[in-house]
Amino acid sequence: MTLPYGIFSTGDSTPRVGVRLDDQILDLEMVERLGFFDDLAIDRTVFAKPVLNDFMELGKTACRAVRQRLIDLLNDPEKPLDGFADFVFIDAALATHHLPIRIGDYTDFYASEEHASNVGRMFRPQAEPLLPNWKHLPVAYHGRASSIVVSGTPVRRPNGQFLGPDQQPVFGPSRALDFELELGIVIGKPSKLGEPVSVDDAESHIFGLVLFNDWSARDIQRWEYQPLGPFLGKNFASSMSPWVVPLEALDQFRIDGPHQQPVPLPYLQSSGKKHFDIHLEVILQTAENSQEIVLSRTNASHLYWNAAQLIAHHTVNGCNLNVGDLLATGTISGSSPTSYGSLLELTWNGTRPLALPNGEIRTFLHDGDTVILRGWAGENEVIFGEVIGKIKA
Amino acid sequence: MTLPYGIFSTGDSTPRVGVRLDDQILDLEMVERLGFFDDLAIDRTVFAKPVLNDFMELGKTACRAVRQRLIDLLNDPEKPLDGFADFVFIDAALATHHLPIRIGDYTDFYASEEHASNVGRMFRPQAEPLLPNWKHLPVAYHGRASSIVVSGTPVRRPNGQFLGPDQQPVFGPSRALDFELELGIVIGKPSKLGEPVSVDDAESHIFGLVLFNDWSARDIQRWEYQPLGPFLGKNFASSMSPWVVPLEALDQFRIDGPHQQPVPLPYLQSSGKKHFDIHLEVILQTAENSQEIVLSRTNASHLYWNAAQLIAHHTVNGCNLNVGDLLATGTISGSSPTSYGSLLELTWNGTRPLALPNGEIRTFLHDGDTVILRGWAGENEVIFGEVIGKIKA
Repeated sequence: MTLPYGIFSTGDSTPRVGVRLDDQILDLEMVERLGFFDDLAIDRTVFAKPVLNDFMELGKTACRAVRQRLIDLLNDPEKPLDGFADFVFIDAALATHHLPIRIGDYTDFYASEEHASNVGRMFRPQAEPLLPNWKHLPVAYHGRASSIVVSGTPVRRPNGQFLGPDQQPVFGPSRALDFELELGIVIGKPSKLGEPVSVDDAESHIFGLVLFNDWSARDIQRWEYQPLGPFLGKNFASSMSPWVVPLEALDQFRIDGPHQQPVPLPYLQSSGKKHFDIHLEVILQTAENSQEIVLSRTNASHLYWNAAQLIAHHTVNGCNLNVGDLLATGTISGSSPTSYGSLLELTWNGTRPLALPNGEIRTFLHDGDTVILRGWAGENEVIFGEVIGKIKA
Repeated sequence: MTLPYGIFSTGDSTPRVGVRLDDQILDLEMVERLGFFDDLAIDRTVFAKPVLNDFMELGKTACRAVRQRLIDLLNDPEKPLDGFADFVFIDAALATHHLPIRIGDYTDFYASEEHASNVGRMFRPQAEPLLPNWKHLPVAYHGRASSIVVSGTPVRRPNGQFLGPDQQPVFGPSRALDFELELGIVIGKPSKLGEPVSVDDAESHIFGLVLFNDWSARDIQRWEYQPLGPFLGKNFASSMSPWVVPLEALDQFRIDGPHQQPVPLPYLQSSGKKHFDIHLEVILQTAENSQEIVLSRTNASHLYWNAAQLIAHHTVNGCNLNVGDLLATGTISGSSPTSYGSLLELTWNGTRPLALPNGEIRTFLHDGDTVILRGWAGENEVIFGEVIGKIKA
């Protein structure tokens, strides 16, 4: 069972913790009130909170005990929850989903080799696709936490500065609005300032994974980013899935990562299966046509650096992690042109417009376009909700 | 009167709000309990909180009313507080200072023309010192909020990757640890996602200013920063002053900024005196010698972009601000070599070692070095506390 955690509300009720079960949400505040967690040695008020942070702060042992209890209850042939079905099972279609995490710091990595190589090929065509540092360390930058929104929140096309046709800066709505298909890593255990987390211990700091769309305005980004990196081209909005898949649910989908050559420095050397076989896809619906058009199909296996390496690198200088921090992978692209995780790559910076099956053309996103990210592992054994965002003017 | 706000505690007492008066702290929780705020229409529980965020969230009108009440009480010839002096006036030397703000997002700008030009001259000697975008927009990047510490907190020299003599990456303690002299802008009023703040309204979002040391490991930064900007070279620690100077205290030190040519786009055009005449200095004490050695003297007037422009730019794409967000100016350097705000510039990337008056030599910081930032306006009319940080191995 996946049993992803999220925050939901119904009608005028206050937001609270639930787990997703197919088309239903199991209301954990109600399960707690009914006494099903009474014998667990945990602070049981955490299920009535409007974010998952308090639950995560209970720690891995407590979170695993809750997960095991839920599995036991749902697998019990006597169906102990069914007598309270009207209270504990909520029709997901009738619920409002909330941002599940009070996000502290948000970091975005650049961990897909194909994505970084594609960007290099586009913008530095005469040079090596990857910059010299890329295979020695997971390149990253700090992003904006305040503008991270839950799936379903409309995304306003940002205004900003970019270069006009005469290479002079102009101001207006971005003409190169893009998505980025990413996974997000939710930190569930803090680390102390000045104390690095080893690559072997790093996964103990992960609560779970989400799908993440790091919306990007390529024209704004291109003009502003030298020399300190992306800023207004990114920080107008990022969208995350309402459901956080606990790391435990993904154990059977662990795989080996790519062979890393050159061998990274010792603090980044990881052993064991720390990559995940997660199918990912990007869907577009246009304002004119609600048909779901698949823009890209890829897999988290295409990441070069794994989550443990991202955490080990992030903290090697003593930078501390807090519960609720979010580390995103960066755009995940595969090697074939139909597996790229951004329109920047899919249209090769707008030079190869996409002819959609409904007859429309896209280089970048139009107002009214809806982008949907989906992810799953196995044959629907683990399903990451969706990240949906519709562009408004 | 300056009346800067901060968070302090004494002995085992809980951290609470105070204002600094020369060598004393006025305990606002106690002033409130004694009834001196009773007639103000505000939530008076804010003074017992361990951060200033709740106080700031009362809004500008309420904060100004509190400030006026304090001025009236302290100026009253009948000295109404003196009868309670043992309770309300705390010897600052006996108090513990705490980080005054629960910081949401932290943004670091690059707003000093001399600093940006010096960096350009060092690292792109064949090109124009300023990149093409610099005079069109305030360049910035997102920094790390979790590792911002209050003055007095020791700073551990970070480990990390940098290029060794043979241009291969090596791992170890940074050999190029530096300070950056900055001012920080504390946001006291939120803005909504999707709704830009105009340059004319921008100052209404500022609660006050702090001194800020954005510690930097130049070797780590140089190897990692392409193409997404600074990350581990910065996020191991930043230090801020314990006292937040309210914007109102600086009104008489407003000055015109530099003539901005090319004229910025309309959303960045600001009128009126929005720069501040704030003297700034950097002091070094070495492990061997507690003598205060002045490394640099400069002034906030050297900033090219003013605080209102930074806020207007930050939000023009719809990025939202929260109470407690911190916007730092970036290193403030003047035009003379004794007015540079970093060792990077003072030693010209280590090529011009500084001969200290005590006989020692510095390119970058040694273990045991203490860096002190000080700031004041007028003839000691407004004093920003200090930012002190000692480097430990």
